[in-house]
Parts: sequence; structure tokens; C-alpha cells
Amino acid sequence: MSGIDYAKQHADRFVTDLVDLLKIPSISTRPEHHPDVERAALWLRDHMHRIGLEPTIFRAEGRLPLVYGEWFGAGPDAPTVLIYCHYDVQPAVLEDGWLSEPFAPTFRDGRIYARGAVDSKCHVIIQLAAVEALLAADAPAVNIKLLFEGEEESGSGHIFRFVREHAELLKCDVCVVSDGSMPDENQPILDYGLRGLSPSLELHVTGPKRDLHSGHFGGSTHNPIHALVHMLSQLHDEAGRVAVPGFYDDVTPLSAEERAVLAPIGPWIEAEWREVAGAPQPWGDPDYQLHERVMVRPTLEFNGIYGGYTGIGVKTVLPSTASAKITCRLVAHQDPTRVYELLKAHIARITPPTVTSELRVLEAGAPAVVIDRNTPAMRAVHAAYREGWGVEPIFSRMGGSVPVVAVFQKTLNAQFVLMPFGYKGGGAHSTNEYAVIDMLHKGIATMLHFFRGLPTTA
Amino acid sequence: MSGIDYAKQHADRFVTDLVDLLKIPSISTRPEHHPDVERAALWLRDHMHRIGLEPTIFRAEGRLPLVYGEWFGAGPDAPTVLIYCHYDVQPAVLEDGWLSEPFAPTFRDGRIYARGAVDSKCHVIIQLAAVEALLAADAPAVNIKLLFEGEEESGSGHIFRFVREHAELLKCDVCVVSDGSMPDENQPILDYGLRGLSPSLELHVTGPKRDLHSGHFGGSTHNPIHALVHMLSQLHDEAGRVAVPGFYDDVTPLSAEERAVLAPIGPWIEAEWREVAGAPQPWGDPDYQLHERVMVRPTLEFNGIYGGYTGIGVKTVLPSTASAKITCRLVAHQDPTRVYELLKAHIARITPPTVTSELRVLEAGAPAVVIDRNTPAMRAVHAAYREGWGVEPIFSRMGGSVPVVAVFQKTLNAQFVLMPFGYKGGGAHSTNEYAVIDMLHKGIATMLHFFRGLPTTA
Repeated sequence: MSGIDYAKQHADRFVTDLVDLLKIPSISTRPEHHPDVERAALWLRDHMHRIGLEPTIFRAEGRLPLVYGEWFGAGPDAPTVLIYCHYDVQPAVLEDGWLSEPFAPTFRDGRIYARGAVDSKCHVIIQLAAVEALLAADAPAVNIKLLFEGEEESGSGHIFRFVREHAELLKCDVCVVSDGSMPDENQPILDYGLRGLSPSLELHVTGPKRDLHSGHFGGSTHNPIHALVHMLSQLHDEAGRVAVPGFYDDVTPLSAEERAVLAPIGPWIEAEWREVAGAPQPWGDPDYQLHERVMVRPTLEFNGIYGGYTGIGVKTVLPSTASAKITCRLVAHQDPTRVYELLKAHIARITPPTVTSELRVLEAGAPAVVIDRNTPAMRAVHAAYREGWGVEPIFSRMGGSVPVVAVFQKTLNAQFVLMPFGYKGGGAHSTNEYAVIDMLHKGIATMLHFFRGLPTTA
Repeated sequence: MSGIDYAKQHADRFVTDLVDLLKIPSISTRPEHHPDVERAALWLRDHMHRIGLEPTIFRAEGRLPLVYGEWFGAGPDAPTVLIYCHYDVQPAVLEDGWLSEPFAPTFRDGRIYARGAVDSKCHVIIQLAAVEALLAADAPAVNIKLLFEGEEESGSGHIFRFVREHAELLKCDVCVVSDGSMPDENQPILDYGLRGLSPSLELHVTGPKRDLHSGHFGGSTHNPIHALVHMLSQLHDEAGRVAVPGFYDDVTPLSAEERAVLAPIGPWIEAEWREVAGAPQPWGDPDYQLHERVMVRPTLEFNGIYGGYTGIGVKTVLPSTASAKITCRLVAHQDPTRVYELLKAHIARITPPTVTSELRVLEAGAPAVVIDRNTPAMRAVHAAYREGWGVEPIFSRMGGSVPVVAVFQKTLNAQFVLMPFGYKGGGAHSTNEYAVIDMLHKGIATMLHFFRGLPTTA
């Protein structure tokens, strides 16, 4: 019996496993649910043990558990695959507009509705089921390491340091991050890039030393909101390009070849834009198509702005300060720290002498990731999705950032691949989240094809 | 015995009257203090009655009382003086940083410390004391009408309509608004202008139909904060002049003569700017001096701005909306409604096609007021301050707006004067507010000189 056959035989039980895991409200952002996160970690450890892995729970002071499991039966000469997923979820309550209790998994129309179904417990179960089938029925030619994080939704506070401090434990030939989604249930995609993120910044502009009466001082005193908007308006040009000198210096140009590679995903991204964003019209760098703008081009975004009176009604104040929150999405080979320094220098240059400004770093950034489309591992992923879905996968790059990927890339000397099995319409972080049951089974099969397709020496 | 002698004899009792009134926490902005506002109104009515006026309390549904008193003993041919003050106060509690209980008046260094001391109960007592002395000891050549408002600090919701509906009751030859302050205890000023206020506006900019993930949509979707700051940055030119087409069309140019009239107040306003505003450097229209900018030039001010995530830390959101609160200070002969329409048309012109914008009116505006410096009433005010203080008063114009003044001007066919007796350093709306006792007595004497100095037929 092959792993594929084993998976077919145990298909219903894999769904039951997913139901069991979905029943645990492992909400990492809510301290009152941390015992549930702990319960989920124990469930995963026991499950790993049952399917033949050697499990360990890693804890750190004030952090939620990382669950790790390994199997070395393929021997020291076989390649090792490290697979990352996260098992924590966003908050959810029925009152938010759910049709069924978010932690009482419910079947409707071939879907399983529950918080965490698509983000990201379907991935956890796919990986556990695939490894179970691999060990039980195939002749495994790869060693396996699974690493499941319990605080991805609350900032991944632990894993960066954990990866750096456990490089030997996590040593592998191929590293798989299994999270994310496809634009269509029937159309697998092959993400080979992620945008990075600059340090998260807050720009504070201070004018007068206290809030002033706009009658007594209006006209003689530079309003810091006025100064701030004038400064912020100088960070982009008329066409929407970032106008910070040097910002694009390290941006890799989009080659004609890559433009062609990405062309097929374009219509999916445009349809999604109309459905989800639905602004009066698209916007952005006129030299790039919509999907290219979010995949291969960097941004400078204002995530928040505040100053003066922001309550109901009117207060004729001329405020003392105004502030904006700023992050940049980066593409290879932009360095987050250099981008911060360029912006800092530009802000200093454009701060008028009538106010003072300060650019504070709130959180560290992460570099962008681009994966070579022609590694043996990427070719194996490509073939595995084709087998699993019966459809040629199309290439894509994620506009978002998964900071842990950059840490894996930097720390582990391995081939790196992204393997998403969710559906984009599945309501991650939203109400009535669901996983498509058919995609669960296709995902398990895809992983088994992937394990088989990897070169025996990586 | 003259009124001046009477006032000297009763000087201590006038201070006691002020103490009594200051003990009543007539905070109009706090519903729980509305019974205290009512108590203050009854105190004023009884006091008016005691000094020989015919008092009436005017009430309206949901509004705080207006206290009115009149005396017609000078006969139908004598001029009638209407005097306006307000008796309500801003909130205050010891914990804000007061050295003594804000409603337990305390004497220190020739000052009386209490909430409302300078804003504006000293004016109420000055007017009551002057009228008492006038009626008791002078041969009054003027008829008197006093109108004390109880909700100036909470938006003057009642008085506009009241004035329009009681034009006959309030009919007068000279209308005195007694409120405000001088830059120095020893330097009386003669305000002959007030800036107006445009309608209070809120500009809403909407981009995508919901908050978006800045990774998935950043670069393809115009961030409404970005659009808003770009629009707001087009409302002024580089020198700080308002860049709304037509904005200055109805602004009266500053004549060489008026420039000379206002020159003496310049150093006071500059000193106040350094002390109170204390920004890195002054700002504004380079064609005007600092004091001219706040007195004779209009402004367009951003009173508040908000959009996206404004809490602690970071959220990489690309928000759906961003908003700004806007008011303009106006000078004669700018029409508030026309200014709103000019701004609305300009906003429509500069709204990019990638977002929508809406300019909402939150509150009505009020036109600016300029008073002829050469009316008999103004000459009487000038002479009265010179007598009362022993110092030549200097001319000034207020940068702020007192909307009720425009209503008086529009409704009553009378000469109009402003008579402030506060000290600018007296902490109006702030902690440890105080009135200078010596200024109270000088104010009473000034009013008596004013009553005498008015032409017997106005």
C-alpha cells in the first residue's frame, strides 16, 4: 500500500483530527485563552507521538509553546525536510456574525466552518496526516522535522530567537513553510517571494509647546498637523512612487522573463482587488500592472495618523503635536535598516524650521525573500501540486511579509519553499472562516508527492 | 458723593460679592453642575434687584438661564447702554494642579484665585458694582440693560436665537461686551476687531471599502491617509498663505494707517508668543508682522486629523478612511458661507479619482467684526480707560472670535464696544486662575467714567 492509498483509507479520520484540533480555542492574543493554547500544544505532541515522531515542547518565559517533532528513519544520507506551521488562531465569538459557534466545527457544503480552519489548522493537519501516511505506508526517503508555532497571530515573539539558538536542531536540506492560500480552490499557486517590512516607524512633529487657541495663535504659529501633512505629502511623487532619495537603489528590476512568469496570476489578483478593496479605481506606479505592484514593488504606507482634536464635534485647537505611523513593504535586496536610515535623513531634510520632528522605531523590520524558482525543491513542489490538483500551478509572489521566513533563510542553509493549502475566500481573520475539505485531502496527497519527488540527496 | 467715591467706599464689599459668586461652581459644560448654574442665576437676579434693576430670568427648553436686568430712570431721551457678560465657567478640580480649591476663593499677592475669577466673573462684578455706584451716587445720564449669559463656555446654544427674538427688549444705543483680557495689568487695550470663524468642517476621505492588509494591497490601492495629506498639503502655499482660490477676495487690505495704529501692540503679542506658544520659530505670511497675522489676516487651520491605527504600537493596516477637522479664522468682509463654498469646490477639484471625499459642516460659522475707532462710544471707551488706568490705552484686534458679537451687530442698530478687564496671564481655562483685585477696582472706575463720558444723546 502506498502513502496515497493510506491517506485515502484514513481520509475521514484526518477530518476528525481537524475537528478535534479546531475545538480547542487556541487564541494566542488573549491571555485567558493561553491554557487552551497549551492544551493544543499537548494535543499536537501526543498526536506526533502516535504517528511515530519524537516530540518535544519548547517553552520560554512568558511565551507560548513551540511543538517540535522529528523522525530520522531515512538515515543520515537522506535529505531532511523541516516543515513549519502555526496552530494558534485569531479571536472569534458567535456575536461577531458567525452562523455557527466558531469553536464548534460545523460542516456545510463540503466545507468545515470554524475559527482557525483555513488559518492555519488545515495546514497543521495536512502535514501531520502526510507524515503519518509517509511513515506508515511509503518507503520514506526523507527525514522529517515538524515545527509548530503557538504565537504567530500574536507577533511571533519567541520563534526568531528560538530558530537562531537552535540552528543545529533545525538543520535541514529543505525548509517548507506551510501557510497561506490560493486564489481559487482549483488553482494551486507557487509562491516564490515575500515582501519584507521596514522597521515600524512613528513620526512625531511638535510645534508649539502646548495646545493653543486657534484664534489667539492661528496665523503666527505653524500647526504641526499642517507641517506633518506637508512632510508626508513629500514622501511620494504624483504618480505614487516613493520619493525618498535612494529608496529604489537596491530594488531588483522586474525582468521581461519574470513579468511573463507572473502574468498568469494577474487576472486573479485584479478580481480579488475588485472584490475586496473595491476603491473607486486602482492606484500605483504606472510602470507596473496591478499584480506586479503588490508583488515586486516596494511601498511606503501610512498605517495611522493622529493629531489635535479627534472626538465628536469641534474644538478650535491649534495642537502641539501630530503623528503618523509608517511602514514600508520591501523587495529584495532592500535592507530594512538602510530604508529606515534613508527615510530618517529625508525626514530631517524636509522638516521645516518652525517645528521639530522625531522618527521613532516601534518594531524591527524583516528583509524580503525571493526563492529561486529552479531549485530541486521548487521543482518538486511544482510537480507535487500538479499531481495533487491535476492542474498546472501558476507562479506568484506574496505581497505580505512572513518575518520567520527571513530568519529561516538567514539561519538555515537550506532550500526554501512555501506550500499554502488554504483558499483565499476562506475568511482568515474574519467571520465564518472555513476550510474546503477536498483541499485538505489534495493537500495531503500533494505533500506525499512532494516527499517522493525530492532528490534523494539534496 | 460721586459714583467713583461710592465705589471706593464699597470696594471691599465688591470683592466680597466676587468671592460669593466665585463660590458657586457654575460649570455649564457639566450637567451635574447645572443646578449650580441655576443657583448663580438666582444670585445674580437677587443682586440686580438689590442694586435697583428690574431683573428677569429667561429660560428655554434644555438651556441654561440668561439673566437680564434693566433700569430706565434716565428717561426716554437718554441713551441706553446694553452690557453683556457671561457667568458660567470652565470645569476645574484641585487634582488638575491647583494650589487651592478652585471653588474656595483664596487671596494671595493681591490676587483672588478661583475658577472663573478672570473668565469672566470679575467682569460680571465690575458691571454690577459700576451700575450700583452709578444708580446710588451719580446723576445717571444713561439707561442700563445688563444681559448675563450662563452657557458661553458650552457653545452659547441659546443666546443667538434669544437676541434675534428679543431685539426690541435689547434695543440700545451702545452695546458693551465685557469679557477678555489685557497683555499687562498696567496697560489697557482697546479691541476694535474680532476675527470670524468659518463653519466648522470635517473632511472625510474614503479609499477601499474596508480596512485592508497593507501587504496584500499596498501598492495597488490609494491609502486614504496618503490622499488626505496630499489634499491638505494643497490648501496652503509654501509661504503659509491659504491656497484656496478666491479665499482672499473679500479680505480688506491692511492700510498704512491701520498698520501704524496696531504697531504699539506688536511687542506685547510677540512676548506672549514666545511665552505661551514657544515653537522653534514663528510662522506665517511673510508680508505681515506676527501681531498682524493674528489680527488682520485669515487662517485655514487643521484642528484635528485621524485615520488608520492610532493606538500603541503597530498595525500594518491600509485603512478605508481618513479625516481632518478644519476651521478658518476670517476677517472682514469674508462671508463664512462663501468661504465654506470656496473650500468645498477646491476640495472637489483636488480629490484624486482613486478616492472619494466629503466635506461635512459640523457647526455654523460667524463673520468677523470690525468696529469703527471713531464712534462717540469708542472715544468714550478710550477716555474711560485712560482715566481708570492713568495710562493711554493701545489699540488692538482680537485673533479669536466671539460669535455673539456678530449677532449683536447684526440685530441691534447700536454702537458697539469691547471692554475687557482681565489680565492675560490670569489663567483663563487653565489651573490657578486668578483676578487682580486692583484691576477689579480700576475696571469699576473705568465703567463709571465711560457712563459719564457717553454723549447724552447717542
